[in-house]
Amino acid sequence: MEPPVTDHRFAKDLPFTAAEYERRLALTRATMDRAGIEVLLVTDPSNMAWLTGYDGWSFYVHQGVLVFHDRDPAWWGRNQDTNGAVRTVWMGDDRVIGYADNYVQSTERHPMQDLALRLVGMGFEAPRLGVEMDNYYFSAKAFMTLQESLPQARMIDATALVNWQRGIKSAEEITFMRRAAKISEKIVDMLAERVEPGVPKNEIVAQIQHDAIIGADGHWGDYAAIVPLLPSGSDAAAPHLTWDGRPFRKGDATFFEIAGCYRRYHIPFCRTIFLGEPPEIFRAAEAALVEGLEAGLEAARAGNRACDIANALAAPLERAGIERGARCGYPIGLSYPPDWGERTISLRAEDETVLQPGMTFHFMPGLWMSDWGLEITESILITEDGAAECFCNRPRAMIVKP
Amino acid sequence: MEPPVTDHRFAKDLPFTAAEYERRLALTRATMDRAGIEVLLVTDPSNMAWLTGYDGWSFYVHQGVLVFHDRDPAWWGRNQDTNGAVRTVWMGDDRVIGYADNYVQSTERHPMQDLALRLVGMGFEAPRLGVEMDNYYFSAKAFMTLQESLPQARMIDATALVNWQRGIKSAEEITFMRRAAKISEKIVDMLAERVEPGVPKNEIVAQIQHDAIIGADGHWGDYAAIVPLLPSGSDAAAPHLTWDGRPFRKGDATFFEIAGCYRRYHIPFCRTIFLGEPPEIFRAAEAALVEGLEAGLEAARAGNRACDIANALAAPLERAGIERGARCGYPIGLSYPPDWGERTISLRAEDETVLQPGMTFHFMPGLWMSDWGLEITESILITEDGAAECFCNRPRAMIVKP
Repeated sequence: MEPPVTDHRFAKDLPFTAAEYERRLALTRATMDRAGIEVLLVTDPSNMAWLTGYDGWSFYVHQGVLVFHDRDPAWWGRNQDTNGAVRTVWMGDDRVIGYADNYVQSTERHPMQDLALRLVGMGFEAPRLGVEMDNYYFSAKAFMTLQESLPQARMIDATALVNWQRGIKSAEEITFMRRAAKISEKIVDMLAERVEPGVPKNEIVAQIQHDAIIGADGHWGDYAAIVPLLPSGSDAAAPHLTWDGRPFRKGDATFFEIAGCYRRYHIPFCRTIFLGEPPEIFRAAEAALVEGLEAGLEAARAGNRACDIANALAAPLERAGIERGARCGYPIGLSYPPDWGERTISLRAEDETVLQPGMTFHFMPGLWMSDWGLEITESILITEDGAAECFCNRPRAMIVKP
Repeated sequence: MEPPVTDHRFAKDLPFTAAEYERRLALTRATMDRAGIEVLLVTDPSNMAWLTGYDGWSFYVHQGVLVFHDRDPAWWGRNQDTNGAVRTVWMGDDRVIGYADNYVQSTERHPMQDLALRLVGMGFEAPRLGVEMDNYYFSAKAFMTLQESLPQARMIDATALVNWQRGIKSAEEITFMRRAAKISEKIVDMLAERVEPGVPKNEIVAQIQHDAIIGADGHWGDYAAIVPLLPSGSDAAAPHLTWDGRPFRKGDATFFEIAGCYRRYHIPFCRTIFLGEPPEIFRAAEAALVEGLEAGLEAARAGNRACDIANALAAPLERAGIERGARCGYPIGLSYPPDWGERTISLRAEDETVLQPGMTFHFMPGLWMSDWGLEITESILITEDGAAECFCNRPRAMIVKP
């Protein structure tokens, strides 16, 4: 056991208590143990932050956190980012390792060669090494290089290993998510007031981003892991279009998918605004969707399964003749771009994961039809008993501005 | 040769002319040919957009563009995103292929199994298949699955193959970058006016994001591939910290790394604001940095090499006792998160790439010292003759507010 080193040079502003980081590390180590993993290389920035507190926009270069059983984790990344690491991680400065800048985007050398040398230097020439094969930012080349540079290592797929530990939120995390929810509510209130025919779409997005970062209730806002999505009319058939400078038009529905974010914790929230008098098809879809949401919230209780939510939603939609091909939700919490989902459970018919108190989801039954779309969603908390609690408190309905 | 299909259902708003996309495809195909690549799988969202026009925040799931020699490219991705693809790519609807939603984040099946079946269906059972081994979003698992599902394929590393084609910008692209530059200038002007002791940092970021998306000169703004970076005081030693809600303080320097973005084309621009009277160390560093920038701009001319810029910059810095460990710039243009660089050339001593007219760089000699930082940068265009042209026109100096 290496002695912990406390760094006194900077006033670190760690988001969580030491006990919270210890909880996370213990969960991760226990799962590593069950999977026969000696050293875990965590490259997903959300997992890196969850384990260590690391916060910086440096995930465009190769970096990672090494988790061991017998010593503190080590942050490893580009030399110039070690200054950010010592300021944001809970470990001592001696647990922050940098590689030389000429490894960056070089065709002659690869950062994973440096990482392999570091592991050997720590005595791990033939580790049982967990790697996140299908998380973000661990490229095919990174894997191949690591394998070539550590020929005696046994590589073990640890995709989503840490993500699964993140599923049940602590009280500290729930507090952050409640703060994020206040930001989401504020944004939706602004949209309901400001979206009008003739207003250019980018002006509304400018205000969303402004309000998101101002924050709410005295808490500053962080950047969301996904930018606002707000297609109108026929384009609302597509869930992931962003914006342009064209005005909102009378007769169009626009869905707004946004998230308030407090210190990397997200509360996604979607509402649809109809400018004008909605045709019957929208009213019928809205009624079925709201009925499905309410049935899903009832089903979203500890002891039930992820598929129970999906099935409860599907019944009223099917009665209205609407068949959704896509899952209707995913776990949420701490995230970095490109996704605010946790990529573990999917709310869909085939997922039988049992729901537990403290799990948090974006219950997201977007309707993306051939030439229109409708989104009314809730971010939810699975409680000790009873139906799910919604983080936001806003009418569960289409916003109609005639 | 499959017949091109023109889609008349949507008013597509392609950013570029058909001739521009043809130019890009021809460059890519010629390079594929030289590399012995029969089919190229492009998974980097920036490369996907550059080749096809595809624009949507869907890169958090597996997707790609297939480039062939004898038929139009094909967009491949999640079923629900085909609606976004038919609205944004120049190819016909029959060139847009979706996979079922239960492939998303499944532990039982992987989207690359679907892609392999599609390739076999097109007659490519044993293709010489180019894959972007070290670009973004092509995970280790994606590679392994593709290899297992297409055992007869010969996989060829095509990392940065398309990126290299993007280096020399067309007149159409330069026009977009000039629009982005106006947004960058507007943001820096706002910063110079608004940053004061006592103003919370997130309020300034809210205004940056607002102004970035409002745009400038009648052109709407797009989201930048990196969020604003603006560490203060000792934290400015770290290049990639974002923000919090604490106020700016008298006596601190803060660097601001921002980029205006017009339809995915970026002009990064950095300036440093000192609140109070800068100590001599800052004044000396500023003088050396500006001298280095100006020497670098002189060296940044067609026929010279990337390293000539780096070496020209280094000389005055070294005379001032400042040794930078990091590269001093990278190519810029079209980008998606997590990076606005093109990841080909690096402005550093070991890069001997010859500069050509139409190349564009962020000349970015950030100084990240042990407990302070200073950034004064320029985004530049290599011209037919003469020194580089700066996209932004703002004083090349520290902004001091006493």
